[in-house]
Amino acid sequence: MKALFLSCTLKSSPAPSNTEALAKVLADQLAKEGIESETIRLVDLNIKPGVKSDEGKGDEWPKVRKKIVAADILVIATPTWLGQHSSVCQRAFERMDAMLGETQADGRPIAFDKVAGVVVTGNEDGAHHIVACVSQMLIDIGFTVPGSSWTYWHLGPGPGPDYRDDAKGHDWSDRTGRNAARNLAALAKALKANPLPQQESSE
Amino acid sequence: MKALFLSCTLKSSPAPSNTEALAKVLADQLAKEGIESETIRLVDLNIKPGVKSDEGKGDEWPKVRKKIVAADILVIATPTWLGQHSSVCQRAFERMDAMLGETQADGRPIAFDKVAGVVVTGNEDGAHHIVACVSQMLIDIGFTVPGSSWTYWHLGPGPGPDYRDDAKGHDWSDRTGRNAARNLAALAKALKANPLPQQESSE
Amino acid sequence: MKALFLSCTLKSSPAPSNTEALAKVLADQLAKEGIESETIRLVDLNIKPGVKSDEGKGDEWPKVRKKIVAADILVIATPTWLGQHSSVCQRAFERMDAMLGETQADGRPIAFDKVAGVVVTGNEDGAHHIVACVSQMLIDIGFTVPGSSWTYWHLGPGPGPDYRDDAKGHDWSDRTGRNAARNLAALAKALKANPLPQQESSE
Amino acid sequence: MKALFLSCTLKSSPAPSNTEALAKVLADQLAKEGIESETIRLVDLNIKPGVKSDEGKGDEWPKVRKKIVAADILVIATPTWLGQHSSVCQRAFERMDAMLGETQADGRPIAFDKVAGVVVTGNEDGAHHIVACVSQMLIDIGFTVPGSSWTYWHLGPGPGPDYRDDAKGHDWSDRTGRNAARNLAALAKALKANPLPQQESSE
Repeated sequence: MKALFLSCTLKSSPAPSNTEALAKVLADQLAKEGIESETIRLVDLNIKPGVKSDEGKGDEWPKVRKKIVAADILVIATPTWLGQHSSVCQRAFERMDAMLGETQADGRPIAFDKVAGVVVTGNEDGAHHIVACVSQMLIDIGFTVPGSSWTYWHLGPGPGPDYRDDAKGHDWSDRTGRNAARNLAALAKALKANPLPQQESSE
Repeated sequence: MKALFLSCTLKSSPAPSNTEALAKVLADQLAKEGIESETIRLVDLNIKPGVKSDEGKGDEWPKVRKKIVAADILVIATPTWLGQHSSVCQRAFERMDAMLGETQADGRPIAFDKVAGVVVTGNEDGAHHIVACVSQMLIDIGFTVPGSSWTYWHLGPGPGPDYRDDAKGHDWSDRTGRNAARNLAALAKALKANPLPQQESSE
Repeated sequence: MKALFLSCTLKSSPAPSNTEALAKVLADQLAKEGIESETIRLVDLNIKPGVKSDEGKGDEWPKVRKKIVAADILVIATPTWLGQHSSVCQRAFERMDAMLGETQADGRPIAFDKVAGVVVTGNEDGAHHIVACVSQMLIDIGFTVPGSSWTYWHLGPGPGPDYRDDAKGHDWSDRTGRNAARNLAALAKALKANPLPQQESSE
Repeated sequence: MKALFLSCTLKSSPAPSNTEALAKVLADQLAKEGIESETIRLVDLNIKPGVKSDEGKGDEWPKVRKKIVAADILVIATPTWLGQHSSVCQRAFERMDAMLGETQADGRPIAFDKVAGVVVTGNEDGAHHIVACVSQMLIDIGFTVPGSSWTYWHLGPGPGPDYRDDAKGHDWSDRTGRNAARNLAALAKALKANPLPQQESSE
């Protein structure tokens, strides 16, 4: 079993990311469950605009896509800007839009039997909305989302510090993140043992 | 295995509901999968405002709650008004808010191992947003949401006819609904065989 | 000039409302601008389900509607439940849906030249999303929404105290609320002097 | 008076954009109101990730920002992908996030007295949600949003044709767009005559 974290921070490496700091709590818990994780910081790559799986010369999405296809668990980790998931996160979903038409060898949607969760940090309110939008996109594509599969951190109200700047609330966010990791691991195993069924197609 | 449909139409019985008409497509498919369904039209009941499991004299939520607890599959069926899920739908979730603190005999959240899906109809655009909001609330409470677990119907752009008035697009909405039912049935079985784990609590 | 506050708390009078406590900051500022405010706690009234301006015997919406029509400024004040605006708030908008087809004496939409703002409190994250949904519904109906026309309060992350329980962050929420009131007052005057134009209809 | 359209299509020039085709309806109406429009297709430019007004070498945002500051009317035109506004649109807002701290010569927020609207096209449902998110971000930054200030086009349910492929519904979308342009023009004039007030700051 493998987990892939898509880090959707706006900051290029090696700048430290608050979102990745909270995402690491889930990766550490997954490791305890015997599941190895890899994190890709998408802003470091050339992910071309578009909605195809390969947008041609220089496009680095195909290698990200290959890792999504190989993973059992996908975690979307995004900062909050003006109450929304980042442009880097939305770009990844636009490229995953192509998966709506892609199938596995047995004809089922390519994302079936994969599970997914969400990690959100911010310097302000917006997390529930982002969990809603990101979960909806994941479910559209065919990922299964377990109960209690996300965590977030920000202090309110109004603009405030970032996750790495203030320890307040870390206990709640980290514990909620560890529980999300436990649920992702368990559901990935449940779906491996009992896959989703064939779908009725339009023909 | 039992499925419960919460119909969130604004129209009291016996007025026909467009949302229930599309929801019936899922119930019929669940029947083919050997799963019996019951539909509750919430607007016919006195569901008191509040966030407790019992809001006292005359409150009819406790009997709805009992059926949610007994069900393996929950389907939220709601109309679209001004782009949002109905007040009747939101009222049900406010009452389910109490489930955030309720546990099963083994200490796990009361909604764990239950799966849920969404049906949306409208005379205008708004379905993806409603799927997002409703799925987020379901996941918050502990329900697991399978990939491709919803369907919707409306014609666009601008205000148009209702589901029962126009057959256009029914093929897509109904097929998507049957697939949602297949996925709900399969995931409910998967979770019965492989339940979600114990959660780390704050103490 | 008159302002109307629709309080969408789930708690019946005389229970104190956190949402009304923050809304009062705007009403007090409006008073300083020479604008009188009235607050209606909707949960105390029998607002029947439906999307017409009068849903018949016992329906108390018509008297609310009359006050909306008479007001220059409308403020929607709602609590946050599971990241969403309350069922009481959504019920009010379902009833305002009828205004989409109602016109003033000069044929313009009934809500034209009225301005509107939003106040959100909660024990958790969700305010930006609620501002988005409520503002969208207001704009749909024809209300004009000034820049910086809302305020909110909650502490994060995870469930926490209510506005009346903890003074932390009040300075930001209250000041932001006073600025919202200033902007609502100024824009109401601007629109009184320069109304929105006639609309092209489908005929 | 000047209007600026930010085209947030994912397609580079000279590929025709459905979103720009619908946006042009508003620009044509603004021309009839005596207001000149300019459209910038953002995907053709190097808009660097970040939340500052200038992200350094090669960043082409500063010249876009300059035109936003010079405009009286801003129209955000975006396609719909998986029910959300495009990554190109979100990128623009992340860069406008810096405007939250920028002021005019008189100390008021830099976006005050500007008005804004939204145009959405798609091959599927999602427009109301996008209007909600985009309007919320605009209002956060300080833009004023008139009643009935948006239009959209898509056919439903499920994936369908694009705006330029099918004339069905154009009458509604185009007329709604012309009305939005009328309201934007009128409100821009109203705010020019009666500007928003000074804001109370934290000091």
